[in-house]
Amino acid sequence: MVATKKVGILGATGTVGQRFILLLANHPVFTIHALGASSRSAGKSYQDATKWKQNQPIPENVQNMVVQECKSTHFKECDVVFSGLDADVAGDIEMEFLKANLVVFSNAKNYRREPTVPLIVPTANASHFDLIPHQRKVFGQDKGFIITNANCSTTGLVVPLKALQDAFGPFSHIIVHTQQAISGSGYPGVPSLDILDNIVPYISGEEEKMEWETGKILGSVNSEATGFDHLENTVVSATCTRVPVIDGHLESVSLKFAQQPAPSIDDIKRVLENYTCEAQQLKCHSAPEKAILVNASPDRPQPRLDRDLQKGQAVTVGRIRECPVFDIKFTLLIHNTVLGAAGSSVLNAEIAVAKGLI
Amino acid sequence: MVATKKVGILGATGTVGQRFILLLANHPVFTIHALGASSRSAGKSYQDATKWKQNQPIPENVQNMVVQECKSTHFKECDVVFSGLDADVAGDIEMEFLKANLVVFSNAKNYRREPTVPLIVPTANASHFDLIPHQRKVFGQDKGFIITNANCSTTGLVVPLKALQDAFGPFSHIIVHTQQAISGSGYPGVPSLDILDNIVPYISGEEEKMEWETGKILGSVNSEATGFDHLENTVVSATCTRVPVIDGHLESVSLKFAQQPAPSIDDIKRVLENYTCEAQQLKCHSAPEKAILVNASPDRPQPRLDRDLQKGQAVTVGRIRECPVFDIKFTLLIHNTVLGAAGSSVLNAEIAVAKGLI
Amino acid sequence: MVATKKVGILGATGTVGQRFILLLANHPVFTIHALGASSRSAGKSYQDATKWKQNQPIPENVQNMVVQECKSTHFKECDVVFSGLDADVAGDIEMEFLKANLVVFSNAKNYRREPTVPLIVPTANASHFDLIPHQRKVFGQDKGFIITNANCSTTGLVVPLKALQDAFGPFSHIIVHTQQAISGSGYPGVPSLDILDNIVPYISGEEEKMEWETGKILGSVNSEATGFDHLENTVVSATCTRVPVIDGHLESVSLKFAQQPAPSIDDIKRVLENYTCEAQQLKCHSAPEKAILVNASPDRPQPRLDRDLQKGQAVTVGRIRECPVFDIKFTLLIHNTVLGAAGSSVLNAEIAVAKGLI
Amino acid sequence: MVATKKVGILGATGTVGQRFILLLANHPVFTIHALGASSRSAGKSYQDATKWKQNQPIPENVQNMVVQECKSTHFKECDVVFSGLDADVAGDIEMEFLKANLVVFSNAKNYRREPTVPLIVPTANASHFDLIPHQRKVFGQDKGFIITNANCSTTGLVVPLKALQDAFGPFSHIIVHTQQAISGSGYPGVPSLDILDNIVPYISGEEEKMEWETGKILGSVNSEATGFDHLENTVVSATCTRVPVIDGHLESVSLKFAQQPAPSIDDIKRVLENYTCEAQQLKCHSAPEKAILVNASPDRPQPRLDRDLQKGQAVTVGRIRECPVFDIKFTLLIHNTVLGAAGSSVLNAEIAVAKGLI
Repeated sequence: MVATKKVGILGATGTVGQRFILLLANHPVFTIHALGASSRSAGKSYQDATKWKQNQPIPENVQNMVVQECKSTHFKECDVVFSGLDADVAGDIEMEFLKANLVVFSNAKNYRREPTVPLIVPTANASHFDLIPHQRKVFGQDKGFIITNANCSTTGLVVPLKALQDAFGPFSHIIVHTQQAISGSGYPGVPSLDILDNIVPYISGEEEKMEWETGKILGSVNSEATGFDHLENTVVSATCTRVPVIDGHLESVSLKFAQQPAPSIDDIKRVLENYTCEAQQLKCHSAPEKAILVNASPDRPQPRLDRDLQKGQAVTVGRIRECPVFDIKFTLLIHNTVLGAAGSSVLNAEIAVAKGLI
Repeated sequence: MVATKKVGILGATGTVGQRFILLLANHPVFTIHALGASSRSAGKSYQDATKWKQNQPIPENVQNMVVQECKSTHFKECDVVFSGLDADVAGDIEMEFLKANLVVFSNAKNYRREPTVPLIVPTANASHFDLIPHQRKVFGQDKGFIITNANCSTTGLVVPLKALQDAFGPFSHIIVHTQQAISGSGYPGVPSLDILDNIVPYISGEEEKMEWETGKILGSVNSEATGFDHLENTVVSATCTRVPVIDGHLESVSLKFAQQPAPSIDDIKRVLENYTCEAQQLKCHSAPEKAILVNASPDRPQPRLDRDLQKGQAVTVGRIRECPVFDIKFTLLIHNTVLGAAGSSVLNAEIAVAKGLI
Repeated sequence: MVATKKVGILGATGTVGQRFILLLANHPVFTIHALGASSRSAGKSYQDATKWKQNQPIPENVQNMVVQECKSTHFKECDVVFSGLDADVAGDIEMEFLKANLVVFSNAKNYRREPTVPLIVPTANASHFDLIPHQRKVFGQDKGFIITNANCSTTGLVVPLKALQDAFGPFSHIIVHTQQAISGSGYPGVPSLDILDNIVPYISGEEEKMEWETGKILGSVNSEATGFDHLENTVVSATCTRVPVIDGHLESVSLKFAQQPAPSIDDIKRVLENYTCEAQQLKCHSAPEKAILVNASPDRPQPRLDRDLQKGQAVTVGRIRECPVFDIKFTLLIHNTVLGAAGSSVLNAEIAVAKGLI
Repeated sequence: MVATKKVGILGATGTVGQRFILLLANHPVFTIHALGASSRSAGKSYQDATKWKQNQPIPENVQNMVVQECKSTHFKECDVVFSGLDADVAGDIEMEFLKANLVVFSNAKNYRREPTVPLIVPTANASHFDLIPHQRKVFGQDKGFIITNANCSTTGLVVPLKALQDAFGPFSHIIVHTQQAISGSGYPGVPSLDILDNIVPYISGEEEKMEWETGKILGSVNSEATGFDHLENTVVSATCTRVPVIDGHLESVSLKFAQQPAPSIDDIKRVLENYTCEAQQLKCHSAPEKAILVNASPDRPQPRLDRDLQKGQAVTVGRIRECPVFDIKFTLLIHNTVLGAAGSSVLNAEIAVAKGLI
């Protein structure tokens, strides 16, 4: 981890892009080299191009960087390109970067369902990097590849699920209900008239993402390392709502194990408390000390109090108890713009460096 | 409905009591005759005794009524006594009133599990009034009786469940997740530091109430009219959270019918839309025109937009769709301080009058 | 007030337009005859064209009305046209309507500073209707005319100021600080990320409006009824902020009277409590029983508790006390989308009918 | 600054006490030695005694410290005692500590008006420490003394005022309007029903504090160093409101200089930008790099975006512009629980160490 890697950020002026900048500003491995945004912003200094909405100032060395258009020619010196692009433009741009032999870590949904693209939550399924050699072959690249991270709510869900599945085998049924923060919708995002003194019980496309992505992430790379074996026989039902919280998605989960009798509540707690992931073993800079924090208080986790623990890279789990209908239920919290977005990409890239892929 | 009944209100200075006063201020059947509160308030005028937190003024004829202690001697002229007392005092006081041959409609939890006390949601199980003759016998009263209404979240849940159970038979599994308004916790209730930019994923005792009360309400009076046959074989799992919303509890429900194949989504919608209840047939003043409002918009119901429909006495249901795990899922909204509290009691009392019990 | 007047609503699909529809749905004098919006909405039914954000349903008779483009030919049968148009289009459209001999009541800022256009707050300066004959002459109309109502914050300010000025003469200095609700910015309006757990201490153009409009409204029609004598020697300094409140602008006012010694606090209270305005004397349907409500509680007015009093057409004043720097200070509340917008226009139109101008 | 000073915290379980613990947990000069709270908490471990409401965990070395009663015998080894006690108990306890020859830094209001007790905002009037020798004489102590810090809103106000007064002489008139965060009221503090979708235009005693304290802080130690010469001829009028913001008080200020003509806006900005205070010169650990941050954006400062700058020890000033009534107006933001409370005490103590008083 001595050499410094140059990184580019696509969608640098948006909400996810701003988080990338804060996470990368004083990074021991990555140094911000290029910023990309729409043609409307290109040519401007970053501080003029962005409507900065973070509670820390724009890092000094970034303020006057000139924003480029999102074309690979402007990013060819970058060892890593982080994409915080919106889905409506991410598809074409990210493919153009990949075909220019660049390494792309994307937050967009566009390639998550692509059979040769890993969908990686860094504290859950880093083993899915094993598909990269095959992906390079498919796209005819020797260095470039693309990794997507998961939807923010899926990300929170799969971390404890991975720990439990590793210990007790797969689940037969999962019912999950989310209460998602407004920052998940970007800026300007949710109008205040829709969310003050209110809940919106619907987020377009979100439930389908959670129900599908969980099966890919908790599945495995096939034996030839040419594709993914999705989870079979695990059915997920998600209900997603938007709540008046700035940051931090809260999720209530009920689940049933395929194998019965189910583990005891104490076994569940023990497994969650002791869970460690590959990112920790690789000693990645952004890996949390604990990927899962178990909180024993009856009324935790809470978004405002728990979202910033472990710099936003942990999932906090609480209220672990028996479910009268299934086996267990619990509540989890994920910081949706850190581990649920830019933080996942950065940690994924650190893992890739540690694995020698970059 | 010509004669006017005199009513008393216990706990008149509290949040539920204030709602009673607004609901009863211009009522065609009931006239406010006596107000009860703690000894600290007794002897004061109502406007001096209460910290009024409603967005309408105190009705003029109530402002200067003198608050009494909650003793039956002060209420013996009342045809009906509404209780908005807290659980820590409701048990003794309500029993003293019942034994003084008074008619009590209670919001407290204390007698909900009592085998001879009906737990009535007025738009769901008005048939449970049939137990009153037996209850009077048990307590040795010729006029007095006690009715409790349900927990606010249970109330919202059982109205659509009742409609569906009547049409399609009982459920095998119900998983419900609530997002409950702060007014449900009274005043001062939830500290603002706990709920601004936050969710509290726990409400003491609430999940147990929902899981238990549902079985009594959706059950039936036994054939001898001496007790209740609770629902058997319907398992309920509830998760209850507190959200920064003033009024209106939102609930996400997933359920499975005992009888398979389950009804279609269209059948479900049709049954909910066409549901009518006894309170409507009896033409009670506070009965909603429709006990269930089905909203077809993908992002409704929403607390701020839908809670006041039908003067807060309806349950709004939306997002009716298939559940990958169970048969169907949907979202419902109940106004927690109207149908979920004082409004239930008032409508229950109107039903009792219409049935000749008062 | 027997005959029914046909009315049109411009900008009917917007936030102010929706308020017009609710205020006019069951009006004894006005009946909704035509709805205007952008060409994007034209030709659609109202319920398809609008994103309805009110907590009451769209009135049944309006749901299926076909929305028209905002051209006077579609509104020529209307006795009154209410405009909730945005300032960027209001200028041209309202002038086209005026020149088609139509009567326009506008919420937009475009003509407020026009020397021949009255700027009328209905419970403050209805006497400014006296300029209409001259205005008709200037624009060459025999029936048509245009009236604007004031900025929402100005409206709240001038009602108590008018009462005090009538009693004690003009002010030398006024310093006012506003805390304005998000509904004042329309929909989608203020992004939730800007206002949850936050205050925005700036509203573009708002302070200038308050500082200027106050002088026109508190001034008088000149003796020839050909123009307005603005207040001279009253200096206003405004600071305007946006707060996380749905409806209701709160304003803190410090003021000094030109004539010294200043009146006593008791005199101030008495004058505010006894204030009556022409709209009340004309017995207009939407006139509040009291144009100013004085609340003696130390912590009132409060937006959520007081905004709906008098159906939103009153200004509530509280905390009347001595100011160490000037003479007095007090706090006022106005419902910004009722008296502060659509409600002003409707009441202005009622006054015009009562005065025989329509 | 090599030697380590032992410190005690009174009121350690309250909101201010929790902030003290976070600020002192990794402090280079101070080490937490004793914790004091009510007799109800005494004898318990800190983590059992407190209802921790911070978004960082309780520091590990504090979790199991045993809470003591607030008696000087338990704190006699402490070089410094920080008091976050409520005013109803602070008077007696702090005096008992002082008379035990202990050094007390208090957040309570009780001794702020005491003629021999300095009222010090560390980035404004550190020169008031000069009174300590006299105070020790009065109370007969050789080591002990007591310093109070100011009300949180006063603190924000006086920092820019001090900079301007030093440069341009005293003010004749100041009108200030505050929008204060809920954390200022402690826990449980403001009920959520009072502040969601609402503003409370009143905080008991707050306006009087601002109007009085400003004159003491901006005044000077008299020439014999035996008392304070309060500002004369500067009149302050304050209006204080409570808003739904977690942390950060926003204040709108209009002011007039005694000496005319007043400085230009550019001069004002320059003076605020270049202001430095004694705490900076003494290189105190908690001193901000800049005591005043001037933000040139038209819509800043904002609580959520600016409160944490400079670790909460700076005052951010924006919207500096001419006032039509007075000379200038501007908006400022102070983090009420850092510089506005515990942060002031800690920095005051650091100054006292640097000055050799401890």
